[in-house]
Amino acid sequence: MLFSNVAAHLKLDFVGKDLEIDSMNELSLSLPSQLAFALHKKYSCELKSSKAKAFLITSSLIEHLPEDSSYIVSEDVSISMAEATKLFHKSPIESNLPEAVIGKECYIDAMAKIESGVVIGSNVTIMAGAYIGTNVVIKDNTLIYPNVTIYRDTMIGSGCIIHAGSVIGADGFGFSHTKEGKHIKIYQNGNVIIEDDVEIGANCAIDRAIFNSTIIRRGTKLDNFIHIAHNCDIGENSIFVAQTGVGGSTKLGHNCVVSGQSAFSDHLSIAPFSTFTARSGVTKSITDSGGVYSGFPLMNHRDWKRLQIRIAKLDQ
Amino acid sequence: MLFSNVAAHLKLDFVGKDLEIDSMNELSLSLPSQLAFALHKKYSCELKSSKAKAFLITSSLIEHLPEDSSYIVSEDVSISMAEATKLFHKSPIESNLPEAVIGKECYIDAMAKIESGVVIGSNVTIMAGAYIGTNVVIKDNTLIYPNVTIYRDTMIGSGCIIHAGSVIGADGFGFSHTKEGKHIKIYQNGNVIIEDDVEIGANCAIDRAIFNSTIIRRGTKLDNFIHIAHNCDIGENSIFVAQTGVGGSTKLGHNCVVSGQSAFSDHLSIAPFSTFTARSGVTKSITDSGGVYSGFPLMNHRDWKRLQIRIAKLDQ
Amino acid sequence: MLFSNVAAHLKLDFVGKDLEIDSMNELSLSLPSQLAFALHKKYSCELKSSKAKAFLITSSLIEHLPEDSSYIVSEDVSISMAEATKLFHKSPIESNLPEAVIGKECYIDAMAKIESGVVIGSNVTIMAGAYIGTNVVIKDNTLIYPNVTIYRDTMIGSGCIIHAGSVIGADGFGFSHTKEGKHIKIYQNGNVIIEDDVEIGANCAIDRAIFNSTIIRRGTKLDNFIHIAHNCDIGENSIFVAQTGVGGSTKLGHNCVVSGQSAFSDHLSIAPFSTFTARSGVTKSITDSGGVYSGFPLMNHRDWKRLQIRIAKLDQ
Repeated sequence: MLFSNVAAHLKLDFVGKDLEIDSMNELSLSLPSQLAFALHKKYSCELKSSKAKAFLITSSLIEHLPEDSSYIVSEDVSISMAEATKLFHKSPIESNLPEAVIGKECYIDAMAKIESGVVIGSNVTIMAGAYIGTNVVIKDNTLIYPNVTIYRDTMIGSGCIIHAGSVIGADGFGFSHTKEGKHIKIYQNGNVIIEDDVEIGANCAIDRAIFNSTIIRRGTKLDNFIHIAHNCDIGENSIFVAQTGVGGSTKLGHNCVVSGQSAFSDHLSIAPFSTFTARSGVTKSITDSGGVYSGFPLMNHRDWKRLQIRIAKLDQ
Repeated sequence: MLFSNVAAHLKLDFVGKDLEIDSMNELSLSLPSQLAFALHKKYSCELKSSKAKAFLITSSLIEHLPEDSSYIVSEDVSISMAEATKLFHKSPIESNLPEAVIGKECYIDAMAKIESGVVIGSNVTIMAGAYIGTNVVIKDNTLIYPNVTIYRDTMIGSGCIIHAGSVIGADGFGFSHTKEGKHIKIYQNGNVIIEDDVEIGANCAIDRAIFNSTIIRRGTKLDNFIHIAHNCDIGENSIFVAQTGVGGSTKLGHNCVVSGQSAFSDHLSIAPFSTFTARSGVTKSITDSGGVYSGFPLMNHRDWKRLQIRIAKLDQ
Repeated sequence: MLFSNVAAHLKLDFVGKDLEIDSMNELSLSLPSQLAFALHKKYSCELKSSKAKAFLITSSLIEHLPEDSSYIVSEDVSISMAEATKLFHKSPIESNLPEAVIGKECYIDAMAKIESGVVIGSNVTIMAGAYIGTNVVIKDNTLIYPNVTIYRDTMIGSGCIIHAGSVIGADGFGFSHTKEGKHIKIYQNGNVIIEDDVEIGANCAIDRAIFNSTIIRRGTKLDNFIHIAHNCDIGENSIFVAQTGVGGSTKLGHNCVVSGQSAFSDHLSIAPFSTFTARSGVTKSITDSGGVYSGFPLMNHRDWKRLQIRIAKLDQ
């Protein structure tokens, strides 16, 4: 799509050369073919070093643009960005793609729906009522139980097990807010990548990324009702017990253990080998690996246990 | 149905004129064609002003009935009411209704199930594995992802998005309890109304009303795993982050923001523009708009933050 | 399967007579035809009185084996046990069984999937998108809503209602952990038994047992999003409000009432008529019946209420 078309869609002017744009991305990850955006002055440094050539920015950032940039200035970059994501959004179903390619010795139930563009490895089982969206890739020996929904463009490794009712790749929860209190959808144009040997319990939900990918890394095991928001990166060989939720863009290192009903805020970074006891509420990043944590607000597990005894004594 | 038939079903006598009854309702909302019920003496004032003409009541309320009322007296109104709801309950599927009417430029997957009596607007997408129950109405431009279940009589507005695995219109959780500790089902004879521009995440559950409607108002956005119980009324342009639950009959004003893993008791009324931080536990109504709240028991967010610091100091 | 084949699969030696083994079980419940296992020295007493004749044990337990036992010694019984469960695991689908037997006056939607070996009673309704796995038994008058998934070997009583999106019989969450931090699946070879008159809300998940059965007893009612882990035994006429989770092998007595967002640790035993207020976190067994509890850590409800007042006063 031409940059001039983006500007026309946003009903804004563009400055600089017209360029072919293939997608959008956040500032630090943008490629030369992508439209980058910056909402606040605090992004001036990132802006200078961005590889992007086309930008959607607030006027105070014009002076910080790399040389020869093309740009659109918006008084409300957040709303303009949301509107722009719609331009790059793919339809939930695409029908003009090649028919699905299915490997050897697969069992694909006649009541499963396989959209076009799908590539399935060998010895894969897809049970009745499962939905495999456009362009999904599923590698060897993976087992998809009934009524699982896998949205388009998801990539699933080999040796995975996905239990019934789980939803992989639904839209992340992202909106820009107007002054009148309405919520404008930020279309979620990324995908989900599930690496090898991941097991996902019943009725989980792993959201697709805004841009780029939500990732569940090799060997990680999720119990039932796990919520993984958009753009999370869950490290290898981690364990999530039931009813736990992880906020957007949070990254966990490998071999974390998260007990039931725990929750993580968004944009955190958690060190490897961290353990969280039941109902932990994690709102800050953790840099040292190997810790054991409890409570909300979160604290060292031993401190939390001692504190509970002190609290109980208040009533004496 | 004749009021005399209701009495016969309950194995109780009726007093007064026999009347045609088309449904049941709670006292304050009953129409003249509806059977109203009152369990406790405290309802005597509501009883006097009720528009209903047929009542199921405890004997102590006879003297408070409007003139010319027909009534059934029960020693256990709660159980009798539950038994009566069964009489007015519609079968989950009805087959003698007209075939579904589908608007222009819709995509209805051959693996979606559309029951009879359904009315679908134009440019609606219904993906594989979705279930659209008897008499459901879906307006223009709405997108239903795979394996969504929409129970009978649900009404869905235009421009809505419902993500995979969500269930709209399942029975609310209502039972009357016998002295022997058994639970008698209160059939949920109401429906769900989703207004325009609502987005519902993956694996949500919005229950149908006992009587009347559970309502999600225009522009509201739900993340994944949101539980909305029967007879809730969720105001316009509200935001619910993942794994939050709302108890029965609770009403939220417009533009509320509810962070993840929060919960509301039943029968609350929450002022507009209220904000709840993560894991709030709301057990009382809120009358002033614009507040920010935290914790369980719930308190002002600033107080909660300060209190957490005090609590942490207990262990010093 | 011959015991010698189990040993070969585990690449370990066996001692004693070769025996025909039909399945595995935990020590205290093992039958003579089952392979029992014991990880720690603390099981020496249980070992002595076990009815099993074939054992997988750590070397320190050899001296405590019953006479004439056959056994395999493993340096890591936990890993060997997980590997052995794979041998006794049944495929998710079995196609060489007799066609399903359906009783009188059933409604089975053409878009429901009924695997072979299924036995369905009379007057059963199975709606579109429901999945009924191999060898499932469903008794009279039960209603299965759309997009429910019932895994193989599940047994469901009469008069049950299972709402849309619920998953009965998915694998329990069980893994053995290698020294390198990998998780080896313990195949879940048991099943789920739902007794008569149970109602299960939307999007619940009730996991199958490792060995033996997860049981939901007669008359119990579950709201939406209830998580019941493997090997739980939920007593008669209990009530679970939304978003509650129960850890593995926990047993609740009859007529318990569990309010929303509560959770139970694994391996607890809870006395009948126990009541838990919203968001209770239960980590210890309860022996006295009829109590009312709150909080996390859990305490007597009255104490909890008084303690909350004390805590609030800290900030004065």
